[in-house]
Amino acid sequence: MNKPFPEALAERLIQHFGQRFSRGESTRLQHGRDESVHAPQLPDAVIHAESTDEVALIVRLCAEHGVPVIPFGVGSSVEGHVLAPQGGISLDLSGMNQVVAIHADDGDATVQAGVTRKQLNDELKGTGLFFPIDPGADATLGGMAATRASGTNAVRYGTMRENVLASTVVLADGRIMKTGGRARKSSAGYDLTRLLVGSEGTLGIMTELTVKLYPIPEAISAAVCTFPDIDSAVQTVIQTIQLGVPIARIELLDTLSLKAINQFSKTTLAEAPTLFFEFHGSPAGVAEQAQTVQAIADELGGANFAWATRPEDRSRLWQARHDAYFACLQLKPGCRCFPTDVCVPISRLAECIAATSEDIAQVGIPIALFGHVGDGNFHLVVLVDTANEQEMAEAAWISQRVVERAIAMEGTCTGEHGIGLGKRKYLPLEHGEVAVDVMRAIKSALDPHNLLNPGKILLPAPGTRDDA
Amino acid sequence: MNKPFPEALAERLIQHFGQRFSRGESTRLQHGRDESVHAPQLPDAVIHAESTDEVALIVRLCAEHGVPVIPFGVGSSVEGHVLAPQGGISLDLSGMNQVVAIHADDGDATVQAGVTRKQLNDELKGTGLFFPIDPGADATLGGMAATRASGTNAVRYGTMRENVLASTVVLADGRIMKTGGRARKSSAGYDLTRLLVGSEGTLGIMTELTVKLYPIPEAISAAVCTFPDIDSAVQTVIQTIQLGVPIARIELLDTLSLKAINQFSKTTLAEAPTLFFEFHGSPAGVAEQAQTVQAIADELGGANFAWATRPEDRSRLWQARHDAYFACLQLKPGCRCFPTDVCVPISRLAECIAATSEDIAQVGIPIALFGHVGDGNFHLVVLVDTANEQEMAEAAWISQRVVERAIAMEGTCTGEHGIGLGKRKYLPLEHGEVAVDVMRAIKSALDPHNLLNPGKILLPAPGTRDDA
Repeated sequence: MNKPFPEALAERLIQHFGQRFSRGESTRLQHGRDESVHAPQLPDAVIHAESTDEVALIVRLCAEHGVPVIPFGVGSSVEGHVLAPQGGISLDLSGMNQVVAIHADDGDATVQAGVTRKQLNDELKGTGLFFPIDPGADATLGGMAATRASGTNAVRYGTMRENVLASTVVLADGRIMKTGGRARKSSAGYDLTRLLVGSEGTLGIMTELTVKLYPIPEAISAAVCTFPDIDSAVQTVIQTIQLGVPIARIELLDTLSLKAINQFSKTTLAEAPTLFFEFHGSPAGVAEQAQTVQAIADELGGANFAWATRPEDRSRLWQARHDAYFACLQLKPGCRCFPTDVCVPISRLAECIAATSEDIAQVGIPIALFGHVGDGNFHLVVLVDTANEQEMAEAAWISQRVVERAIAMEGTCTGEHGIGLGKRKYLPLEHGEVAVDVMRAIKSALDPHNLLNPGKILLPAPGTRDDA
Repeated sequence: MNKPFPEALAERLIQHFGQRFSRGESTRLQHGRDESVHAPQLPDAVIHAESTDEVALIVRLCAEHGVPVIPFGVGSSVEGHVLAPQGGISLDLSGMNQVVAIHADDGDATVQAGVTRKQLNDELKGTGLFFPIDPGADATLGGMAATRASGTNAVRYGTMRENVLASTVVLADGRIMKTGGRARKSSAGYDLTRLLVGSEGTLGIMTELTVKLYPIPEAISAAVCTFPDIDSAVQTVIQTIQLGVPIARIELLDTLSLKAINQFSKTTLAEAPTLFFEFHGSPAGVAEQAQTVQAIADELGGANFAWATRPEDRSRLWQARHDAYFACLQLKPGCRCFPTDVCVPISRLAECIAATSEDIAQVGIPIALFGHVGDGNFHLVVLVDTANEQEMAEAAWISQRVVERAIAMEGTCTGEHGIGLGKRKYLPLEHGEVAVDVMRAIKSALDPHNLLNPGKILLPAPGTRDDA
């Protein structure tokens, strides 16, 4: 049982925020669940903040009353990040959706945390620049920074780790901190920006970000190619990466994913193991890259190379790819996804996927496999009826198998989703107890009363309660 | 006065390390000074460690006796990082010089902290891969990680921030921590690797690193081009970066730097504002980039484009560039360098350099200007007789002017050298008091007794002593 929400705090917040403060059941439910199998855990209240100062006020008041604060963007987490296992306030930042500044000459933009990736790219129209990081959902940049998100372009442009230059952060006591700067590099002190990126709202609440932008390539070309089996597709990826082809996107989808996409997106793609490619560069450079990759694919049995060079064709293709997760969910009406998100060194990718395919063959539930294989990252979309114990047990079994395998291969339990609630138990296995102790020491130093998104990333220290 | 070195500790260390433990004056002096104007501050003793376990033992024993530990690589710091303001042990890691593993298929290598950048590249011969980060000195990778170093290739390949995947770290209490992993990306918990990178030995001692490697480009071409004035050269840089040309190196040197290089390296380069370029890619890609940049330079009055395509010519050119710092020191026998290392957003670079040139004209001491301008980073090599108060005052004046200007332009006081002792006072100006407080909280959490490289990065909290 969480302790009751302090009425004095509620009154103070209503006084300031009026209808932007809500304790209604439906709003709380909307903010206390995510896209995955985690059962909803509702906050006591929801506040829509509109400025860094408001966030600071809320955090300061909550600190005075010992009330947890959980930042919320669009709720597209799949690891329970937005759930409220200890109650408290869900701090909705989606109203902080201003692009503060576009520095086209420097290739960066400063945005409020609630700006979504698509919104930013819309606002960049006419500048010749774009922001490449693209998780499946149209997530907020704050949420993406908090989970160290990536997506299909990371193989070339990096993840949020490489693309956040600076941030404005509200600390656990309500103080406002600036990290980083707009210089492209700096050796000035501890890298607080990168400490905050990936900290999932547990060390501070990022309210503004300065992110890198990139020139829209002079030429872009996308292609789809099918393979006789997954292994041939994966070998094509490995050789492409090892040759150092500066490919912008290289995505693998298995037969079941293609089937789901065709049904959901009304496409007519071949239902076979498939790679989606995209090449960025000068016209000559793109032609050169495409030729190299096509030669590799040909040798490995790749067939039906279909090119999309017109922007609308490319958009359709990548929208279909981005919809893969939701498309898969439609394969089994009423189901939820038990997500996996491992990432391994590229040399181990074929072995990791082959062993995972054997696991898939052993369970009865439908499982689609796709991912950002240029980074060594792939997902299983394990479709479960959360009320069915047998299915949930099978899903947990395969998830654990895949994670343990990836870590044994010097990889990670999560390439881009984050730890949240769902992957906490794997953190010591991946990083060792000493590193987890150090993470805990940093958490205690920055949030001594454990009020910022409590229960996420770190399991409670032995002897303390776990409400998650 | 530092407290006397505990004899019980000395005995214990001699027992284990024999002649690798030294209290000799010359060894202590060699380890208690650096390449810049900082007056030597000697450690009480020097130990040459040969393994992570030995480092852990030393740190644990020193912790028991409250004795500071200062990691030492080759001593090429220019910000006093290796000085011992509170005495203690200088922990020389140069004997930890094994390349532990080269994973050519994954494009990474694991090395001990004492491996130097040139040694790593020598050991990579035959793999088709190289390690790009190249500060002026042949520094150790441990030192480079500790200062978040970069160099001439950072504009394309990033700095140590982007290129360290994993590390082994000895903590203040002697525990051994692993951070990161070999996956290209991960969202698993706090980014301890990037917290350690740039922490200058104050949070832990990095004993092993896994770094990214890159395929040696199919084609490489280098060029030198002179300009009628610095501004035309800087405008060429800005336009090149803003166009998104994936240039590998673009370095500015002023007339005095060229004069110094010609004298030191016996070259016959034109003594005028000069850009050094290098292009990496496919043969067609390199030709395309070169053409673009040459067209920009032509429009801005660039002349005498001289190409170096043979490897030996390129090596000679870049060796001359790397020797620029030492070449400048020879301009004034017996002098030392008061270094500056600002980095600004590229759109402000011309303005920053122009204003800095006006400052240079106001002082009597010789000052060379060169730098990694593709990143917005440039150095002043301010040549001073450290015994001459007037010269030291002028040097301090111009250093402060340049730093405050860069920070006002949303830049940084140090692009690649680190804070050390010399730039501590600028940290609050650059990041604000709140961020510095958070750095201090992290330092206290990880090194509560302030024994790891004490006095570096952070000025003592108000009310405590500063021995530096």
